Amino acid sequence: MASPKLYPLVVVDVALFSIIDGDLRVLLVKRAAEPELGRWALPGGALRPDLDASLEDAARRVLRSKISVDIPHLEDIRTFNGAHRDPRGWSIAVLYCALLPRDQVQALVRSKVEAVEWACAADPGHRLAFDHALQLEHALQVLRNKVDRHALPLHLMPERFTLTALQRTCEAILGSKLDKAVFRRRLKGSADLIETGEFERGVQRPAMLYRASDGFDFDLR
Amino acid sequence: MASPKLYPLVVVDVALFSIIDGDLRVLLVKRAAEPELGRWALPGGALRPDLDASLEDAARRVLRSKISVDIPHLEDIRTFNGAHRDPRGWSIAVLYCALLPRDQVQALVRSKVEAVEWACAADPGHRLAFDHALQLEHALQVLRNKVDRHALPLHLMPERFTLTALQRTCEAILGSKLDKAVFRRRLKGSADLIETGEFERGVQRPAMLYRASDGFDFDLR
Repeated sequence: MASPKLYPLVVVDVALFSIIDGDLRVLLVKRAAEPELGRWALPGGALRPDLDASLEDAARRVLRSKISVDIPHLEDIRTFNGAHRDPRGWSIAVLYCALLPRDQVQALVRSKVEAVEWACAADPGHRLAFDHALQLEHALQVLRNKVDRHALPLHLMPERFTLTALQRTCEAILGSKLDKAVFRRRLKGSADLIETGEFERGVQRPAMLYRASDGFDFDLR
Repeated sequence: MASPKLYPLVVVDVALFSIIDGDLRVLLVKRAAEPELGRWALPGGALRPDLDASLEDAARRVLRSKISVDIPHLEDIRTFNGAHRDPRGWSIAVLYCALLPRDQVQALVRSKVEAVEWACAADPGHRLAFDHALQLEHALQVLRNKVDRHALPLHLMPERFTLTALQRTCEAILGSKLDKAVFRRRLKGSADLIETGEFERGVQRPAMLYRASDGFDFDLR
């Protein structure tokens, strides 16, 4: 793409989080084109005004094309922009934060079309392309702030889950342990959690299974 | 500007708030060009990659050119985008929220270069251009959420102010009264407020004057 003088390059980048082995992970892809060929990056791509009805559409299209997955929850959280963040010229990156239910990670990894890695969100272990380290740090901060202010990250949960599993997910995001009694009190009366009446199977003291209510609220902006 | 097929039109729009006569007001300008000629709108303008080092720079340039003012606090809060929000074609509007200290409103109104109006933020009384009614509603919600979560809107205050004036400003943003005792407790120990040791003049029971600490925090994202 030519360096735009009158119009900036507009891209969407996606910080896609999930929980794997109890850790908060973020999806990285290895860049297969210049600039920053071969470097790890958040999945992203240029807006296609001829294809996309909105930036969110563009973000969904990028995720479908790179990792063959449709993400239910996608949220734009900030623009990163300026003349120097991308060698192709003046650019605007609209950062989206997305959450993938933990039970969908396996299916996704098997369908990968290029080199992908679920890196530790707090310490991805690679030097990232462009300003993606900054973008990831910001996305993680937004996610932590929400959970800190008592939003429940239900988008990360499978269809049915125990309250203990929900607590472990919050802890993985915050990077610290929560007091069980305090956490349970916080959940009491939450309209976002529905008792299913079913219990875990194959464990000695099976716990109640819950599900997210339809249209639960994770947007604290 | 021609309808861009490959590059979207990128504009910045600014919801500039201040307190006038105890009310939360937002600055509107009457559009002097097509599209939406003659309609009231948030001040805004197209990004100029040749002039602006960043979108925030663009927002500052727009405010300088429309209302001759430099705003200390400016924050991008969301993008509004898509193929249909502007008749010129696919467009991205990056919405900024800005706060003008109440003691600077008079100077600003006198320097106006086009028709401007400080409209009631909650009910501007005009049908606004483009999706600016939606943008204004969102900016107001972000501002209210912050004050609701105990951020102090010190950017709106003059250099020295009483705690009662600060409470009135919070009330104007929230659109509801606050309990004085609860509000004072909230302020206790806030690192953002500094006692000046000076008192009001010309009133019967002069109250202590405060100022904002350098680098106080209003960013709750």
